[in-house]
Amino acid sequence: MLSIKRLNTRDDGFKASLRALLAFDATQDDSIENAVTDILKGVRQHGDAALLDYTRRFDRVTAASVAELEITPAALAAALDSLDAAQRQALEAAADRVRRYHERQRAETWTYTEDDGTMLGQKITPLDRVGLYVPGGKAAYPSSVLMNAIPAKVAGVGEVVMVTPTPDGLRNPIVLAAAALGGVDRAWAIGGAQAVAALAFGTDTIAPVDKIVGPGNAYVAAAKRRVFGVVGIDMIAGPSEILIVADGTTPADWVAMDLFSQAEHDELAQAILLCPDAGYLDQVAQAMDRLLPGMPRADIIRTSLANRGGLIQVRDMEEACEIANDIAPEHLEISADEPQRWADLIRHAGALFLGRYSSEALGDYCAGPNHVLPTSRTARFSSPLGVYDFQKRSSLIQVSRDGAQTLGRIAACLAYGEGLQAHAASAEYRLPSTEKT
Amino acid sequence: MLSIKRLNTRDDGFKASLRALLAFDATQDDSIENAVTDILKGVRQHGDAALLDYTRRFDRVTAASVAELEITPAALAAALDSLDAAQRQALEAAADRVRRYHERQRAETWTYTEDDGTMLGQKITPLDRVGLYVPGGKAAYPSSVLMNAIPAKVAGVGEVVMVTPTPDGLRNPIVLAAAALGGVDRAWAIGGAQAVAALAFGTDTIAPVDKIVGPGNAYVAAAKRRVFGVVGIDMIAGPSEILIVADGTTPADWVAMDLFSQAEHDELAQAILLCPDAGYLDQVAQAMDRLLPGMPRADIIRTSLANRGGLIQVRDMEEACEIANDIAPEHLEISADEPQRWADLIRHAGALFLGRYSSEALGDYCAGPNHVLPTSRTARFSSPLGVYDFQKRSSLIQVSRDGAQTLGRIAACLAYGEGLQAHAASAEYRLPSTEKT
Repeated sequence: MLSIKRLNTRDDGFKASLRALLAFDATQDDSIENAVTDILKGVRQHGDAALLDYTRRFDRVTAASVAELEITPAALAAALDSLDAAQRQALEAAADRVRRYHERQRAETWTYTEDDGTMLGQKITPLDRVGLYVPGGKAAYPSSVLMNAIPAKVAGVGEVVMVTPTPDGLRNPIVLAAAALGGVDRAWAIGGAQAVAALAFGTDTIAPVDKIVGPGNAYVAAAKRRVFGVVGIDMIAGPSEILIVADGTTPADWVAMDLFSQAEHDELAQAILLCPDAGYLDQVAQAMDRLLPGMPRADIIRTSLANRGGLIQVRDMEEACEIANDIAPEHLEISADEPQRWADLIRHAGALFLGRYSSEALGDYCAGPNHVLPTSRTARFSSPLGVYDFQKRSSLIQVSRDGAQTLGRIAACLAYGEGLQAHAASAEYRLPSTEKT
Repeated sequence: MLSIKRLNTRDDGFKASLRALLAFDATQDDSIENAVTDILKGVRQHGDAALLDYTRRFDRVTAASVAELEITPAALAAALDSLDAAQRQALEAAADRVRRYHERQRAETWTYTEDDGTMLGQKITPLDRVGLYVPGGKAAYPSSVLMNAIPAKVAGVGEVVMVTPTPDGLRNPIVLAAAALGGVDRAWAIGGAQAVAALAFGTDTIAPVDKIVGPGNAYVAAAKRRVFGVVGIDMIAGPSEILIVADGTTPADWVAMDLFSQAEHDELAQAILLCPDAGYLDQVAQAMDRLLPGMPRADIIRTSLANRGGLIQVRDMEEACEIANDIAPEHLEISADEPQRWADLIRHAGALFLGRYSSEALGDYCAGPNHVLPTSRTARFSSPLGVYDFQKRSSLIQVSRDGAQTLGRIAACLAYGEGLQAHAASAEYRLPSTEKT
């Protein structure tokens, strides 16, 4: 039997119970922080030598030079060629759909000219070089390689550099194939905080990048947090979450399996179902009991659902949407007959999956939108990974001689008000009364 | 006499000299970090009471309740009414221009439907509530209030909440007037790390926000860094910088004053001039010597230029643009006859000021683009503050029954490859062969 919390919004203390369910201790571990401090310092000071040393100690891979740790473009291409036909086709179809969706996110430079000839605008440029971290071992997801590399290449990033640890020298061929398909330009068999340090600071062999993206363990996350400012970073992801708002019209088995598909990620993953119909919640609970034994990752699912899962009875669908906005979930399935009606009420969610056919799993792999999404309520203020994370803007200001007369007076007045006389003088120099050439 | 470094790209060791000039020690101060830890904990645990206590200790303002510390909408409106006509007109003209520019940055929701009926898209929503930190005392810039509040309101943020310390009860009327003009919804006379804590965690009187923006001292910066994740934050700004690329055709006095306008901000500000013409660099140096005594902030300017300023002779304008890309300056003036020709070579800068009439001061106050810009080389990967910082995206995925057949197969294949059987089953449930209702 599967144990999962049942809540009802009519209960006293529901809000507190919901908060307790959502709570997640993100406290940083001092021993990890200290280890990362040492590793960052080591790579910064000793470069390639430190990188080789840490790789030998942590991944049990001995190399005479960092150059030996390169996974060559030929090796990436060979991995792609080695896939069986079905897997290759699936990966290619996914890459193609992800690319097409992300192409719509590309921003373009714009300018406009005012009546007096002053031109204003916003110039869009891609980042020069981006580092993509890909975990080794069991958390190595080829789909993540696509989701991170493709937006960068669509943005026009000059060079995408992948790092991935290869413990005991073991390379994951599907990950390398995905790198080839995603357009990764160079790849290195390094990982951990030492790989983050190499990307941020550069070494003799590895050129520094401008931004580092991609998931990683606690050491990688701590290292990314530390190098932020030297380089850009993407979000530091918390545990993955799904919230399903159901009106009770989707087969209970489907919703049960959607909850499982989140819970199977890891013990900290969170899967919550909201529905106005208590009977439907019962059906889903029964379906979960029936389906669990067939799941290879049943133990992870059981722990995740027992500790962090929830079946919540709401008064109505409107209330479900209010709660969804409060939770601001990473993934929100609206499994209902009129999904758009409820979607219109949603302000905060990483991705909305509308209607019974839109299971999260389809979005995780191949619908097109990115699967790197804001977790832990950060959808209140942040967005899925996208092309916009690999482009940046520069303001364009070309003031005409006439424009300088108007703007100069305004600027000088405000500058005097702020006590900044050099600002005022710089503006006034451009006025006709003082203009000298 | 003003002392400022002269460099030449032809010199041995130029690169190292340039690095040394750009270097800036951003080490965090442990005593500040510890104080901020205590303040955050205090406000989190004791709410309003802690806020009142810190405000009494740090700002010497005693209030019986946090409600007493509100700066009411009527008080903001009164401050606006109290401005003299010229200043009010200047502030209104600036607000109007900033608003018009930022309206072009607003993103809109888009969707598209594929042949099989699957709908994909990107939904745009504003943040619900934003906190705007405005420093008290000498660093209180009304222009900054406009530059932070207007993009938030253009984005559609429901509530913009300003906090600003009022040491000894002293309120800055121009700051309050700018808040009224910028559309600030509520304002509180609180500051420091305690104000950041109140905005991030909320108290009985102050509702929590979703993002905190605006400049502040080291305590405010440390507090923002700590609450990041609970709320969004804007960049933590380093010292302000200008890089001027000149071809020698702009009056030397103008360029000298533009360098001063950056240097007068504070002793750590950085002002650097690149020019192929040694004679012109001499002229600018002479102009600075002549103009410095007339500057009220001459001491700050002298220190800033002596420690962090530079006049650099380059081989040609192309080389100047290469160096500009390496520096990735916050402000880049291209003071030249063909500014667009050189602007096309620039990949990394917060804002580009093109042509002799486009002094940075015009952009600081009223050209239209934002004056909150990426510092310390972060223009390599980040952008000016904009409407996009107050909007966020949610992916939209509505898979049709037909679409689920195609996508389900791809997703299931990839999910099996990643060992995620519940993902595969969730996708396969939507295939016709297994579909049950």
